[in-house]
Amino acid sequence: MSKISEDILLIDGLEYCNWNRELFENAHQAGLNAIHATLVYWENTEESFEKINYWHRLFKEHHDIIAHAKTTEDILDAKKNDKVAIIFGFQNSAPIANDIFLIEKFFEAGVRFMQLTYNNQTPLAGGCFEPKDSGVSRFGKAVIEEMNRLGMIVDLSHAGKQTCLDAIEVSNKPVAISHANPNFFHKSKRNIDTDILQKLVKKNGFIGLSLYPYHLKNLGDCTIEDFL
Amino acid sequence: MSKISEDILLIDGLEYCNWNRELFENAHQAGLNAIHATLVYWENTEESFEKINYWHRLFKEHHDIIAHAKTTEDILDAKKNDKVAIIFGFQNSAPIANDIFLIEKFFEAGVRFMQLTYNNQTPLAGGCFEPKDSGVSRFGKAVIEEMNRLGMIVDLSHAGKQTCLDAIEVSNKPVAISHANPNFFHKSKRNIDTDILQKLVKKNGFIGLSLYPYHLKNLGDCTIEDFL
Repeated sequence: MSKISEDILLIDGLEYCNWNRELFENAHQAGLNAIHATLVYWENTEESFEKINYWHRLFKEHHDIIAHAKTTEDILDAKKNDKVAIIFGFQNSAPIANDIFLIEKFFEAGVRFMQLTYNNQTPLAGGCFEPKDSGVSRFGKAVIEEMNRLGMIVDLSHAGKQTCLDAIEVSNKPVAISHANPNFFHKSKRNIDTDILQKLVKKNGFIGLSLYPYHLKNLGDCTIEDFL
Repeated sequence: MSKISEDILLIDGLEYCNWNRELFENAHQAGLNAIHATLVYWENTEESFEKINYWHRLFKEHHDIIAHAKTTEDILDAKKNDKVAIIFGFQNSAPIANDIFLIEKFFEAGVRFMQLTYNNQTPLAGGCFEPKDSGVSRFGKAVIEEMNRLGMIVDLSHAGKQTCLDAIEVSNKPVAISHANPNFFHKSKRNIDTDILQKLVKKNGFIGLSLYPYHLKNLGDCTIEDFL
């Protein structure tokens, strides 16, 4: 497959895979310039640092086609050198446990996205599967401020509604919902209400659409207008 | 000081100290039969197991006057042998992080009390300092069931009001509020509303009164009747 364009950056907004040479080659041949790769969900601090080490072994083994990106410059360099840039992300806040200083340590190691929650409640906020969403907690507010300071993106995928509204309000930088669909397209606990989308957009946030089957309706039932 | 009575068990409901020989001797000479000792607050899994190892060094060093208690029988044995029994407790759920199987591992190591929260929100529940108390979360419900199964006491000190109400409801065994006072005596975020106390008592739970200054009013303002 030929490269889509020399003028745009083609970024895969989220992937979690059991990575191997073939998958990296597929991404490379498809012309992807970058992938936001999920490192961990429920792993604790130590396991999360181990996963970063695992990725450094992958970078060494597949250095001809992938490279670690910590900055926009790194992504542009990867494109110039015909490599796929890998951006680290966490789909949960389990790695930082109760320790706010760990955010900077993970940031230094290259982590650029962190979700406040993964379906369930965390010390930071409420998940989308909780019958009662706490919203952003005291510690969650401090964590968002620290992520803002460092430049780590607050990802609200898998968060509850009140948590989304609170986090958009609290964050002084745009936040992301990296993988979910609008509820007006298909209603699901993981999808997002219109009032959240409106607030998100007003603060220059973004949503990445999801192809996970439970976030989609039968495509026969809808047209492209449903996505717009 | 002489022993208070041969017929009763005198148990200190909660202590957190930088333990040393003198403190153990004080407890022993005062005739205490047991102490519920707080091992950790914010420590993670590994640090909590390390604290258990630290206690085993204390048991070895001071074996003439203290002993580890995992059962009522152990407390009675300690009394018979003129030793102070030590009961392990956690003032937070940080040690188990997101791993329900850790509860049994800590139980086997002798932990008999665990608080769901310590002022702030946890994956299990809401703390008494949170402006919005989530109540018991999905994971919190599963944790209480597991604690009930094992025989580890759910301690609601430092929990939010909704969390107290939910936990008393969810637990099929009596729960404890090991250290707090009634709000009718002195209003404080850490003290307990009457409706909670009523529900607690109906399910055979208990509250241990607290001597921490912020949980007390000026004693000149009240009489012993305030405590009854």
